[in-house]
Amino acid sequence: MGASPSDRVGGGACWGVEAAALMARNIVTRSSNYNEWYLDVIKAAQMADYSPVKGCMVIRPTGYAVWEAMQRDLDRRFKETGHVNAYFPLLIPMSFLQKEADHVEGFAMEVAVVTHSGLEKTADGGLRPKGELAEPLLIRPTSETLFGAMYSQWVQSYRDLPLLINQWANVMRWEMRTRLFLRTAEFLWQEGHTAHETYQEAQDETLRMLDVYAEFAEEFLAVPVVKGRKTASEKFPGADTTYCIEALMQDGKALQAGTSHNLGTNFSKAFDIKFLGRDNQQHLAVTTSWGVSTRLIGALIMTHSDDEGLVLPPRLAPTLGAVVPIYRKEEEKAGVVDFCRKLMAQLCGAERLASADARQAGRELLSVFSDASSNQAVVLDLRDDRPVEKHFYWEQRGVPFRFEIGPRDVEKGSFVLKIRYSGEKRFVNLSEATPEWLAGLVVEVQKAMLARATDFRDSHTVEVSSYDELRQALQERRGFVRCWFKESAEAEAKIKEETKGTVRCVPFAQAGGSGKCVFSGEETSEQVLFSVAY
Amino acid sequence: MGASPSDRVGGGACWGVEAAALMARNIVTRSSNYNEWYLDVIKAAQMADYSPVKGCMVIRPTGYAVWEAMQRDLDRRFKETGHVNAYFPLLIPMSFLQKEADHVEGFAMEVAVVTHSGLEKTADGGLRPKGELAEPLLIRPTSETLFGAMYSQWVQSYRDLPLLINQWANVMRWEMRTRLFLRTAEFLWQEGHTAHETYQEAQDETLRMLDVYAEFAEEFLAVPVVKGRKTASEKFPGADTTYCIEALMQDGKALQAGTSHNLGTNFSKAFDIKFLGRDNQQHLAVTTSWGVSTRLIGALIMTHSDDEGLVLPPRLAPTLGAVVPIYRKEEEKAGVVDFCRKLMAQLCGAERLASADARQAGRELLSVFSDASSNQAVVLDLRDDRPVEKHFYWEQRGVPFRFEIGPRDVEKGSFVLKIRYSGEKRFVNLSEATPEWLAGLVVEVQKAMLARATDFRDSHTVEVSSYDELRQALQERRGFVRCWFKESAEAEAKIKEETKGTVRCVPFAQAGGSGKCVFSGEETSEQVLFSVAY
Repeated sequence: MGASPSDRVGGGACWGVEAAALMARNIVTRSSNYNEWYLDVIKAAQMADYSPVKGCMVIRPTGYAVWEAMQRDLDRRFKETGHVNAYFPLLIPMSFLQKEADHVEGFAMEVAVVTHSGLEKTADGGLRPKGELAEPLLIRPTSETLFGAMYSQWVQSYRDLPLLINQWANVMRWEMRTRLFLRTAEFLWQEGHTAHETYQEAQDETLRMLDVYAEFAEEFLAVPVVKGRKTASEKFPGADTTYCIEALMQDGKALQAGTSHNLGTNFSKAFDIKFLGRDNQQHLAVTTSWGVSTRLIGALIMTHSDDEGLVLPPRLAPTLGAVVPIYRKEEEKAGVVDFCRKLMAQLCGAERLASADARQAGRELLSVFSDASSNQAVVLDLRDDRPVEKHFYWEQRGVPFRFEIGPRDVEKGSFVLKIRYSGEKRFVNLSEATPEWLAGLVVEVQKAMLARATDFRDSHTVEVSSYDELRQALQERRGFVRCWFKESAEAEAKIKEETKGTVRCVPFAQAGGSGKCVFSGEETSEQVLFSVAY
Repeated sequence: MGASPSDRVGGGACWGVEAAALMARNIVTRSSNYNEWYLDVIKAAQMADYSPVKGCMVIRPTGYAVWEAMQRDLDRRFKETGHVNAYFPLLIPMSFLQKEADHVEGFAMEVAVVTHSGLEKTADGGLRPKGELAEPLLIRPTSETLFGAMYSQWVQSYRDLPLLINQWANVMRWEMRTRLFLRTAEFLWQEGHTAHETYQEAQDETLRMLDVYAEFAEEFLAVPVVKGRKTASEKFPGADTTYCIEALMQDGKALQAGTSHNLGTNFSKAFDIKFLGRDNQQHLAVTTSWGVSTRLIGALIMTHSDDEGLVLPPRLAPTLGAVVPIYRKEEEKAGVVDFCRKLMAQLCGAERLASADARQAGRELLSVFSDASSNQAVVLDLRDDRPVEKHFYWEQRGVPFRFEIGPRDVEKGSFVLKIRYSGEKRFVNLSEATPEWLAGLVVEVQKAMLARATDFRDSHTVEVSSYDELRQALQERRGFVRCWFKESAEAEAKIKEETKGTVRCVPFAQAGGSGKCVFSGEETSEQVLFSVAY
């Protein structure tokens, strides 16, 4: 449907025909072909690439830096809520998958199976597997089973609880139809696994981590989300209850951005996680798990990016700004570059600039951390490329701020600030450009981007009161469709078949009261959000 | 041989018989059984555990936090030298291993092989692999081949060079005899892969990264290392030249702590990494690779730890300090805990303490970051355990500083500081305990630990001038054995067979001049370091 949330003035307008030609070559518009636009944005920003292994992608530096920024921020939130990280093995014995009945249904059919522990040479100089394993090993699709096996050893008494462990890891689920970041055979994620004394504590943990995800999405990614509960047909196999955050993409499709599961005693029973309680009796621990993955990068792209390419929110952007000298004659270069270096020194500190000079000697892109704690960089672009090429280079990589400096700017002692998300241009005196000024810009733009995305989400959330209306809204991809609905696996299957739409969640925020289910007509006290989803 | 570099006063002496009994139960001494001591230290600190999958370990939170600290520091050094991170697939097509002839010799025999893409149920309710792959896939033992395949696509012109990419990843090499952290089937590491225009540039990069590793080891791990070149028989298969840093453990055995390879054009040829040069001709790129792994955790343990357990250097320690209230009567508790909280607020900031209170409500171990950028924490230990248990808890986890506070201390407005590595005890006024004071302690102790380890290394480096002396020194595990040696694969094989010793490196730091090879008697200008190695 190609909704265009921005009415931005193209920052490239001044470059005229040549610029337009370059753009046309790289990225199709959202309105002409949304799916192709998504892949073009990724390609132009060099975020990811297909690999020689079917279904697996290479996450290129621009894409991986986004994941690192997400990891850094999320990890701090996990630790602030008392969690610690660990690392569990990649491989799981096949028999483990059978211990939890629902779990095996969910994963058994799509796992990568290791059957041999080596290779040997064939007569014709080729290679073939050798050393067949007694029991096949599976590349983890998720790690509830391994955590369960270890927790049963580590937990003896209520004093060993809670166990609050997270891991950052790669997982594999063989997928037939893959899509960069959104659905790939191997992907990166974090999976938290906790064990508790009581059901209430586990429930508190499940909801606490859902809040952590929601705050992270809104504060750091500038992606507004709806918190809610999954219906029984959409929950994680093996969970008592699954909670989620759901985001809305620019094409009106929803994207599940994170899940948090109360697993009850399902895995404790399967793996015998028992403890001696305060009452001197044996009890089963209550466990939870929660995760987000590299598909968040897909959500980030589809929330903010525009027809010119990637747009990153400034709190997250690995490259916060690019300082771009612009000159036409060689004799102008020295003065312009000198001015650029003054700006770099003001924004990042002279000491950090000197250290980068020493350690990156000869490089055309000089990268300097803007701030000791954030890991965000400002880059001085010393390449001999034409201005129009540099313009698109930084534009397509989503860098929030560009500082452009030409000979006229040097004379005036000022520079041009270009803001990626809005296309806005500001003239700034060199003396104003302090770290505090930059920090202020970050806050301002971050807030504006969340507001814009929230406006989009809200204006694409519709309410319907009949099944016909629901069907039509889903077919037109009008976004989140809110309606009274009485949970029923059969009804959901039927609706999915007819509309491709699913219940994204039963939102925590309910209007109250009751109404008639759009499908069955029965009276119900719950409204749900339907949408077609990624 | 159980060398005991420390003459420390046992911090636990004051706890008397009970403490001694606890210690005896947990950790054997280095002199009685070094190998068992190593495993006991890991177990007592809960750093790692064996997993249900043979050869694979679980890195538990205490161990993983050490790896995270290493990652954080190394990653910053990589980025400061202009590198970026990416993520390449876990699986490699079998045919890739055959493209570089030496490479296949090095790895083909010990890789995990994925042959199926799913499971199916058997008639008796079990599971079996299904969906056999057309070509088996290998779990990466290292990723030169995949980087090679992608670099050949990404590199077209000299303007695309240098490519300076690192990845943090898990790798697998099936091992028959495993040992926690030092040799496990799956391990974590980073692998840098770079491509350059000229041989000289690649050589500069190879040595630059070796310097980064050496600085990291000495400044951050307080582990002194020797930089040098590997002989042809010890180098990485497929490399032109391999450089390494070698450390010496307390039992007189050496440990290779990092390697950096100049791969020449070996992988460019195999994967066709070609570029249009400044001279308008096609050239092969010159590539490098360099890596360190979780075996560094083994090196860290064996360099610093003592008979009481783990000892961590304060720049690295994830938990920098533990504040331990000590009281015998319930009515003393409130006053002591209040005083502890004052100390926490002074060291970490009142705001950070309040935030931890809110987010970790009810937890017995309250963890507060000491510093916004470092990710190191100070923990307030509110458990009701006996003081002796708390003593060993923190002692065995290697936490550099303990702040012990009892009712008498509260009266005097002071506390007892216990320094883990030396066993030293200091009495400190509460008013002195500022963040700057803590930072000063970190610098002081870090320096002292490196000095102690360097003294040990230097006093365990011997020089020999005959093969008999070499053999004896190696048999007695006297540490690094320096001698004149003329490189020869046959001589090295023979010496290894007779003594288990290998040439650890040809050190960069040479005495100069020449001498007679201890093995062949030939004149040579090179001295090497022999040692038995992990």
